Amino acid sequence: MQSSILDQLAAVIESRKSADPSVSYVAKLFSKGDDAILKKIGEEATETVMAAKDARVSGDTSDLIYECADLWFHSMVMLAQYNLHPQQVLEELARREGISGLVEKAARPE
Amino acid sequence: MQSSILDQLAAVIESRKSADPSVSYVAKLFSKGDDAILKKIGEEATETVMAAKDARVSGDTSDLIYECADLWFHSMVMLAQYNLHPQQVLEELARREGISGLVEKAARPE
Amino acid sequence: MQSSILDQLAAVIESRKSADPSVSYVAKLFSKGDDAILKKIGEEATETVMAAKDARVSGDTSDLIYECADLWFHSMVMLAQYNLHPQQVLEELARREGISGLVEKAARPE
Amino acid sequence: MQSSILDQLAAVIESRKSADPSVSYVAKLFSKGDDAILKKIGEEATETVMAAKDARVSGDTSDLIYECADLWFHSMVMLAQYNLHPQQVLEELARREGISGLVEKAARPE
Repeated sequence: MQSSILDQLAAVIESRKSADPSVSYVAKLFSKGDDAILKKIGEEATETVMAAKDARVSGDTSDLIYECADLWFHSMVMLAQYNLHPQQVLEELARREGISGLVEKAARPE
Repeated sequence: MQSSILDQLAAVIESRKSADPSVSYVAKLFSKGDDAILKKIGEEATETVMAAKDARVSGDTSDLIYECADLWFHSMVMLAQYNLHPQQVLEELARREGISGLVEKAARPE
Repeated sequence: MQSSILDQLAAVIESRKSADPSVSYVAKLFSKGDDAILKKIGEEATETVMAAKDARVSGDTSDLIYECADLWFHSMVMLAQYNLHPQQVLEELARREGISGLVEKAARPE
Repeated sequence: MQSSILDQLAAVIESRKSADPSVSYVAKLFSKGDDAILKKIGEEATETVMAAKDARVSGDTSDLIYECADLWFHSMVMLAQYNLHPQQVLEELARREGISGLVEKAARPE
């Protein structure tokens, strides 16, 4: 069965928990622990906001997409650090909006 | 064709652009403009970090999932404000990690 | 003896701990507790960053001064919440930079 | 005439504008420009919030003072980057609270 980008990405991040911190950026973040990861959330949120301000001036949204990807990526590293899966965040979002999460649940690896 | 939670959520958010600001939270955010939306990114990032710190003390991660959902939700409102789609963020993430984005592209509504 | 603006401001904030939350913004923040105050740090930091980006476009720095004042003010509410005094932050800054803090110590109310 | 810690610190930071970026942290920040400095505001705000959460668990506020000092320090680097002086922020705070800023104005170097 095929799985979503978020599922594949979560699997890649999870695999980094046992990788060598000297060769993997994510493994290095995990080795540093909670605060190093949480600090990145604040940092990437700020960079996203700056990219959004810049996009209004330049008319170019490519940096905004890039920084939002950074923010989501580090959110996923945080979720992994707390043994959580992005699917749990999606299910919370689906629950709020009354959206069916059945499709993604079906595609979930576990 | 079935679409993902993020696709459905993006559609719901997009539909709020034409909703009444007095009855919809998201419509109200759109009516306030860029800064009101961007401020929420900083606010929700901070709340996510606080929930993560609390989770280490309480052992309960439910608030962390909730706050991360808030962060992602407001990121999606921001994307919509800039006429972007979460799929573009996922594709950026897939590109970086060498993950195939074909599955989700197939499920994309447009 | 005359005291500095930060000392006077710290005294005003401290006095709000016993004020009526329904009439004082700061008293209301204190009544809500740590998280409400800490959330404001993240929020005001984001607003400061946005004002700085705007200042480069408009050439007008008045909003930046305003938002930085908001950030410092809420930092001082946080310090008071933890029974700390801005003078302790200034002394840490003086210590780092090898600056004499004797002048302000002399002016300190206690 | 004696000047306050903030005045002395502002002078030190201002002097770093012409320092060698390879030997001075602040000179390096200035050489990187606006975004590098603004990113630090978001980062230090997040670290302040984390230190505040930790202080409630440990009962030790020394890290909180340290991180708040970092936040104020980088705010001052930002002010210098925009050719502003911390006294302007203090005057805004004094104005709001109806506090006399005359003492510090008298001590201001220019």
